[in-house]
Formats: sequence, C-alpha cells, structure tokens
Amino acid sequence: MLAELEIIPIGTKNASLSGLLADVAKLIDASGLDYRVGSMGTVVEGEWEPIMRLAKQCHETMLQSSGRVMTTIRIDDRTDKPGPGRIVHKVQSLEQAAGRSLKR
Amino acid sequence: MLAELEIIPIGTKNASLSGLLADVAKLIDASGLDYRVGSMGTVVEGEWEPIMRLAKQCHETMLQSSGRVMTTIRIDDRTDKPGPGRIVHKVQSLEQAAGRSLKR
Amino acid sequence: MLAELEIIPIGTKNASLSGLLADVAKLIDASGLDYRVGSMGTVVEGEWEPIMRLAKQCHETMLQSSGRVMTTIRIDDRTDKPGPGRIVHKVQSLEQAAGRSLKR
Amino acid sequence: MLAELEIIPIGTKNASLSGLLADVAKLIDASGLDYRVGSMGTVVEGEWEPIMRLAKQCHETMLQSSGRVMTTIRIDDRTDKPGPGRIVHKVQSLEQAAGRSLKR
Repeated sequence: MLAELEIIPIGTKNASLSGLLADVAKLIDASGLDYRVGSMGTVVEGEWEPIMRLAKQCHETMLQSSGRVMTTIRIDDRTDKPGPGRIVHKVQSLEQAAGRSLKR
Repeated sequence: MLAELEIIPIGTKNASLSGLLADVAKLIDASGLDYRVGSMGTVVEGEWEPIMRLAKQCHETMLQSSGRVMTTIRIDDRTDKPGPGRIVHKVQSLEQAAGRSLKR
Repeated sequence: MLAELEIIPIGTKNASLSGLLADVAKLIDASGLDYRVGSMGTVVEGEWEPIMRLAKQCHETMLQSSGRVMTTIRIDDRTDKPGPGRIVHKVQSLEQAAGRSLKR
Repeated sequence: MLAELEIIPIGTKNASLSGLLADVAKLIDASGLDYRVGSMGTVVEGEWEPIMRLAKQCHETMLQSSGRVMTTIRIDDRTDKPGPGRIVHKVQSLEQAAGRSLKR
C-alpha cells in the first residue's frame, strides 16, 4: 500500500518547520521503505505494520520537540496491485492515460 | 489523542456507501473507545495502539467488500491534555472562546 | 455538497488554538450555511461558491493572527443527492444501515 | 500558496482511476500554474483564486464521469514566503536541514 505522511507541530513559535521536519525525514530515509518526498508530505510504500511503526516513530519524534502534533496518514491500498513499485507506476499510468509527460 | 477515521471504498458500482460503512461503524461502536460519528468521518479518542488496531480492522473489513480502499487517519495529540474527554472538551472550549453555542 | 473545513495556524507560540479558532467559528455560524462543529473540523453544507467564499474568509481571518496557515477542505459531492439536508441524512442512513443508534 | 489537490470518484465500477484522472491531469498541466504530480495527489502553486478556479474545474470534470466525487484541497500559505518557487524550495530546505539528499 501507499501512505502519505504529514506531521505538523503546533505552537512552535516559528513558522519555519524544516528544522523540526528534518528529523522526521531522516527517520523515513533510514526506514528501508521506498518513499518520495513532496512539498506537502511524504509518500511511503510498504505493508500496514511497518508503515504504521514508522508513522508512530515520526509522530513521537515530533512530540519531543512540540507538545502538540497533528499527523495525517492517507492510505491507498489495492488488493489487485500489491506492489512493490506502485509509488512509481501510479504516476506512470497517469502519464500514459493523459498521453503526455507531467511535471514530477 | 483524537483521531478522525475516514474509510472510502473505490470501484463499488454504487455511489451509496452507507451499507458498506455500516460494518465499519459497528466495529467502532463495539471497540470500547469513545467516538463521535460525523457526516465526513468518525472521531475516536484513545491511545495510539488501540486506535491504530481499530483503524486496521476498519480498513481490512472494507477491503473484503472492495478491492481498493482509501483510508485517512487525522490525529491531534497533545502531551499537556492527554484526555480522556478531549473529544467533548475541545468543542466546549471553542464555544466558550466564541461566547456562543454552536451547532453540533 | 458537504465540505469539512479545518484551519490550522502554525508558529502560534501556544498549543491552544480555541481563541484563534473562535473567530473562524463565528464566521461559519454567521454565514447562513448549515454546519456542524466537530472535534476535528467543521462540516458545512451548500453550493461550491458560498462554501469557498466562506473557506477563504476563514483562511484569511486566521492569516491575520498567524503568518502561516494550513487549511484543509474535504468535499463530498453527489449529483443524485443535491441536498439540502445531507449533513443530517448521511449519519441517519448510516445508523439505519447499522441497525443501531451511534454516538454523535 | 501551495495546495495539494486530490480528486476521487466514487461508484466507478472499476478500481483503476488513471483514465478518469487523466482529464484532471490535463487541466492542471494546461492551467499555467506550476505543479508537481505525486502518487497521492498533485501540488499546485499560485494565488487563492486561480487555484480554486482550477480545483472547481477538476471537480466538475470528474463529476461528469462519476455521480459522486470526493475532493480534498490541502493548503499551506505563508505571508512571509509568498513565492513563487516554494513548490521547489520547501523540499530543498528540508534536504538542507537534514544534511542529505532525499528521494523525490
């Protein structure tokens, strides 16, 4: 399955979050799961358990820096396309159906 | 923590989802977690592990009816207000700050 | 259509948001649109234009208090059930399908 | 501001959405707004009005193929970093803070 993770600290005194999000990014990068960082969240690919273990780690790491954290996990799961590789194939299928290359 | 669960089946032939969502609602109602059903998702209150166990049950139950499921979990977690009761207090605080009662 | 609005200020120095969200709640309450406040967002019912006008007002009001705002708008739109009343009927249909009353 | 758009048709008989999403992708590609397609949604950069005009076009285009559509718009807006270019800079800042390059 694919899951987009978004981890937002609240009450951080500073509107810039990249310092706080860097620790989360390093956890995801070191997790062994395939992932893609975007400007509004990071998509990871894997099974339910390892993804949720990673999400919890990210959430708890952020809670150490900020007393309130809002975490959103958006899952897209297909039994007929178990992966791996959907993290790439999904955009390729879209480009093929659109008949053009798209900005990634 | 509070978590809003939204479970959406894709490719269901029918635009009405209440039949499919009823099994999910029954799981949440039987979970022992406090919850509130809304028109765009259900908010549950509890700790990370029981909430994620419930989310997985809901997601897998829906996967038995539909080969593709999109599940969104939105978490609001505060170390200084661990609950229980935030599921009610949060709206009460908002009403108090607004100086009026709001439609719930 | 139904739309859930969630307006989150970033970098607010304080983890409690009810003071800042009260102004948003008052805008929604005064909008003339039917709505329901929940612990993870407010659902409004109406047409695209008035809902988006209200969403913009809420977003810009929050931007006056906080230099960074994350706003999420989740829309559920059915051509065969144009409303009004879906904000209530959707939960009623779910209860009927589940064969029990649910906590709201 | 940045906005992630996700347009999901319900009751489509088919779990594969790339054919239906291709028309949406073409609208975004032709909009003149900078954008990045990801596996869980597309991020666009611009002002409120053109982004919401585009979101409405995408939503209504999907409604022509499917009688029920769920559209999610997630906005990140900063008065101190009005853009353009945040769609790229945000990930670059994260990489810099993490001290490593990340998979995009």
